[in-house]
Amino acid sequence: MAAVITTKSGATWQEIAADRQRHRDATIAEIQPTFPESLPEITVNTLRIAKGLLTPEEIKITETTTEILVEQLANSQISATNVIKAFLRRAALAQKLTNCVTELLPSRALERAAFLDDYLAQNGKPIGPLHGIPISVKEHIGMKGLDRNAGYVGWVGGVADNDALILRILWQAGAVFYARTTQPQSLMHLETSSNLYGVTTNPFNTSLTSGGSSGGEGSLIGFRGSCLGIGTDIGGSIRCPSACCGIYGMKPTSARLPFSGLLYCGGGQEQIIPAIGPMSTSLEGCKLFLKTVIDVKPWYQEPSLLPFPWKDENFFQGKKLKVAVIWDDGVVKPHPPVLRALKQLVEKLKEKDNIEVVDWLPYKHELAWELIANLYFCDGGAEQIAAIGSSGEPFRPLSDHILKNKYVTAHTVPSLYKATMKRDAYRTEYANLWNSTATSTGPCGELEGMVDVILCPAGPGSAPKIGTSKWWGYTSQWNLLDYPGIVFPVDKVDISRDSTSVTHEPINEWDKENWKLWEEHGAEGYQDAPISLQLVGRRYEDEKVVQALEIIQRETGVPFVSYT
Amino acid sequence: MAAVITTKSGATWQEIAADRQRHRDATIAEIQPTFPESLPEITVNTLRIAKGLLTPEEIKITETTTEILVEQLANSQISATNVIKAFLRRAALAQKLTNCVTELLPSRALERAAFLDDYLAQNGKPIGPLHGIPISVKEHIGMKGLDRNAGYVGWVGGVADNDALILRILWQAGAVFYARTTQPQSLMHLETSSNLYGVTTNPFNTSLTSGGSSGGEGSLIGFRGSCLGIGTDIGGSIRCPSACCGIYGMKPTSARLPFSGLLYCGGGQEQIIPAIGPMSTSLEGCKLFLKTVIDVKPWYQEPSLLPFPWKDENFFQGKKLKVAVIWDDGVVKPHPPVLRALKQLVEKLKEKDNIEVVDWLPYKHELAWELIANLYFCDGGAEQIAAIGSSGEPFRPLSDHILKNKYVTAHTVPSLYKATMKRDAYRTEYANLWNSTATSTGPCGELEGMVDVILCPAGPGSAPKIGTSKWWGYTSQWNLLDYPGIVFPVDKVDISRDSTSVTHEPINEWDKENWKLWEEHGAEGYQDAPISLQLVGRRYEDEKVVQALEIIQRETGVPFVSYT
Repeated sequence: MAAVITTKSGATWQEIAADRQRHRDATIAEIQPTFPESLPEITVNTLRIAKGLLTPEEIKITETTTEILVEQLANSQISATNVIKAFLRRAALAQKLTNCVTELLPSRALERAAFLDDYLAQNGKPIGPLHGIPISVKEHIGMKGLDRNAGYVGWVGGVADNDALILRILWQAGAVFYARTTQPQSLMHLETSSNLYGVTTNPFNTSLTSGGSSGGEGSLIGFRGSCLGIGTDIGGSIRCPSACCGIYGMKPTSARLPFSGLLYCGGGQEQIIPAIGPMSTSLEGCKLFLKTVIDVKPWYQEPSLLPFPWKDENFFQGKKLKVAVIWDDGVVKPHPPVLRALKQLVEKLKEKDNIEVVDWLPYKHELAWELIANLYFCDGGAEQIAAIGSSGEPFRPLSDHILKNKYVTAHTVPSLYKATMKRDAYRTEYANLWNSTATSTGPCGELEGMVDVILCPAGPGSAPKIGTSKWWGYTSQWNLLDYPGIVFPVDKVDISRDSTSVTHEPINEWDKENWKLWEEHGAEGYQDAPISLQLVGRRYEDEKVVQALEIIQRETGVPFVSYT
Repeated sequence: MAAVITTKSGATWQEIAADRQRHRDATIAEIQPTFPESLPEITVNTLRIAKGLLTPEEIKITETTTEILVEQLANSQISATNVIKAFLRRAALAQKLTNCVTELLPSRALERAAFLDDYLAQNGKPIGPLHGIPISVKEHIGMKGLDRNAGYVGWVGGVADNDALILRILWQAGAVFYARTTQPQSLMHLETSSNLYGVTTNPFNTSLTSGGSSGGEGSLIGFRGSCLGIGTDIGGSIRCPSACCGIYGMKPTSARLPFSGLLYCGGGQEQIIPAIGPMSTSLEGCKLFLKTVIDVKPWYQEPSLLPFPWKDENFFQGKKLKVAVIWDDGVVKPHPPVLRALKQLVEKLKEKDNIEVVDWLPYKHELAWELIANLYFCDGGAEQIAAIGSSGEPFRPLSDHILKNKYVTAHTVPSLYKATMKRDAYRTEYANLWNSTATSTGPCGELEGMVDVILCPAGPGSAPKIGTSKWWGYTSQWNLLDYPGIVFPVDKVDISRDSTSVTHEPINEWDKENWKLWEEHGAEGYQDAPISLQLVGRRYEDEKVVQALEIIQRETGVPFVSYT
């Protein structure tokens, strides 16, 4: 393999990017059989193209969910080798259609799969709970011996000297790592575009973004080039691309899953703690991932983690699931398809005896954005700006959007402490709001009958047009509060149902910009885009949120359309 | 009641201090019957004086431990009124002998006790798990309608508009608040002296410090003027005075007990999180406190808290308790009485079949001090310096010692993040050290057979001579790591046993200074001072530490002397 071209050798940013793309393409070219030079023209939905170019067996394997694959692999119904071959091939095709991959790892993945197949044959049992499961990985999560760049041209050349802790745990559980995926410059866009790899698009409608920052994962998994992947989220970066690409994605409460071994700006920052989490074609896939990682007690190795075991107790034994609905965050009104899908789901929930639905009045979500935007870059963005500047690469517009927004300031220690206290005051107010939903008080002053989860949009529309993802509030709200959130697919934009004329008088600039997008493009502009919603729980109630979504799925049959 | 004199009215710091002392004395004077004007001369141990001035019933009540009082109160063997009267009287005497109280609250305490006695009579059951238990409170923990100063003359006049959350919870559980206790200027001494109230001394030897910063609590509880109190700890402030005064004191892991409603410098600081915790004449008293507060799920009201219930499971079912011993932190050698007591205890532990004892090689404790001292005052101490300066009061020598130590720096945001990452790296190294004690690995990679707790000194000597408490490392070590630590009484300095001649070649300035104190004063200088030790667990393993100490007490009969 040729040496990696970096700024150290005096290369321009364009040369570095070209080299990274050559490297990526070379890894794609290793996948056999290769695809024809000229692929069918991409109209809107690339999933249809997959059907014409993959074998029936490849389609069947790649459209199987993680939990079923786990069973089939454990029972030797299918081999790890066949599974990884099918996903490698579909991932290679995904790259050609949506530009979501930074490199594939065919030789190490095939070697690993062969080892696992041998292990099962010799031992008569799987090596661990994820035996043979292919897992795709966002690029900035370190893999031993492989280059890392975190979306910065200037960081190319920083080879990881160890696998990130979460990868070591998943490896021990039987995972096969085979694909690394794209992320935006700075990791701080709700889209995925960088000067290294260009723009990642949405597999359901390539005029739209994959979302971001874990948009390579979103796009790859949405296309079924992966069934389970790993993203990171400090403002929506797992949930936004999952929502855009019609998959499940969970941002757990902070400090539940290991974060060591990742490359990013902002190390040592404790005001807003980023989370790492699963993205998958199934809720069960996310749950299996969470449980597997937490079950090995990673807190002994990463002492900032909280020693909560994964809770299997039934939170809804003998009681109703109480869901509060946010229709609109009071800052940016969601586009009509989102409200249509939310209404559709809420109506079904209301029919169920074991579910109670109430409305939730959003509490100062605009202030919440001000607070979190003021805490993302406490040095005024200096670290990110230096990282971008180190190669001379230009700022992407969405880097400007976030790094130079009006709430960013170069804090002093006293101003940082004040801002942190404001964060805590807001968190306390939100907690009190939640406490106020209690219907009674137990013998020791315990609150009872409180809302269990909040159901809300995952963003102010379906997947946005490329370059237009500006309002983070629907996801960043829960980072500020450090609440767990999971997005799930509900429906798709449908011209016949979503072309109704709705008028709205915008209440601020963000709202105006978002509504203008709808007026300009209408349902036609977002055709086939997945519509997803978000379920949010109180801090550390990750397991409860997952269980609540299981109930909602079982009771309503959501999603209401097929994504394959 | 006369209006509080403050800086706002142009008063000098001396006038403010005199007013606060007048107020304190007025509240003491309310306690009936009063003590004679001239008390017996204090020789060394004030406990002996108590025996001559209190009634046999008062002595009996105040020398009963919390858990026994809980039973007696619940069974109506004793009334809440009689209990609080006895403790008020002994607290008033404590103030005269050791200067540990900022005010007593006789009228509200007696009213509360009368209410509780009525409640029990009418309902036939106690109001909660702490029905009628007197609880003393460190001054900076807010009490509605009462002045707060946190040790700063300039802060006098800041009346609390609500009870601190932890007091509201304890109140609901049946507590009776009756005494507020002294703390040092800045709250950052391991002693207790302020320009408001002067020096708090040690009830067992008034030439020695009570320890600090929760030294009013330490002294009051050591004297048996309280059976249960509340302290705070960011470097040893619960454990040091507990150790100095021969009582039990626990610093839990951070974010387990509610901290809201406290007055202190450093709000918004997240690098080293202070802890609040119990100080008591019994281990069971501490445990009851912890369990009572955690059982009401305070995390719903204070969202920075972790939602761990109090764990009642037996951590040592079918397995040995594995204790690792630190004899010396490698920075400052403990005085001979500490090593003598430690040896005495370890020898007893080694005789037991259900306990395994190993040595622990302290890992870079000098670096740990550098790291934590660099993170205590991230603004270079500006906030504390301003608080002291606001009244013109002079700096106490121990304020200078800590605020102006060589590791304090006015951080920028980037330097703060770097220092935080160094803290995390050290925490990871210590975790790996602990992991390395595992004797085997479970099926899912879980570590087994690790050390359960560390047994170590609580300080570099028994209670120090006033003004000489300089080395924080034996307690601050566990704040840096955020490990729970509990101190417990073992023995007392005994001239006949501790006057042996030991030579030691100091290895640094701290060590030299500490050793010189021993050479100057010898056992005679520390006569009757309690010798305490410390038991430390891994982060969040608070319950395990308590259980381990229960086993150690049961198996060895520690403490080896009586403290009353």
